[in-house]
Amino acid sequence: MTRNGNGYVVRVLVYPRAEVLDPQGRAIEDALGRIGFDGVERIRAGKTFEVSLNAASRAEASEAIERMCRQLLANPIVEDYSVEWLSR
Amino acid sequence: MTRNGNGYVVRVLVYPRAEVLDPQGRAIEDALGRIGFDGVERIRAGKTFEVSLNAASRAEASEAIERMCRQLLANPIVEDYSVEWLSR
Repeated sequence: MTRNGNGYVVRVLVYPRAEVLDPQGRAIEDALGRIGFDGVERIRAGKTFEVSLNAASRAEASEAIERMCRQLLANPIVEDYSVEWLSR
Repeated sequence: MTRNGNGYVVRVLVYPRAEVLDPQGRAIEDALGRIGFDGVERIRAGKTFEVSLNAASRAEASEAIERMCRQLLANPIVEDYSVEWLSR
């Protein structure tokens, strides 16, 4: 993990933006109701990515992650993303 | 949120099991390499669900979430799931 710099592990969460329909979440709510789960208020369905990367510093890793999110992992027109550090 | 009991918010993360291929993660690794991200060691691609539910207690909510995961949100043959509490 430390071939070129330091190893970092980051979790990216990608959900439909609040104002965008979430058909997968709605389908799961309906399915849970049908199989007897009556306490469910709401489901938001999204994607998650656990990214392991090498970078010279946490700041450089953070900058790379933000670019990855905007260029590939999320579609900023219809999705919001958030980043959580699983390593330092 | 407190119509019948207490409101809880839980995040479920679902990833391919370690011994199962993760073709989406591999495709993203390859795509990131092609667009110039050279520090990426590994990507794991999964699903996430933010579940808002009412239950009489946290123990009851926890039991319901575990059943939801096994019955609908994850396929335990090929996927592992984990649960994180976003509320109490």
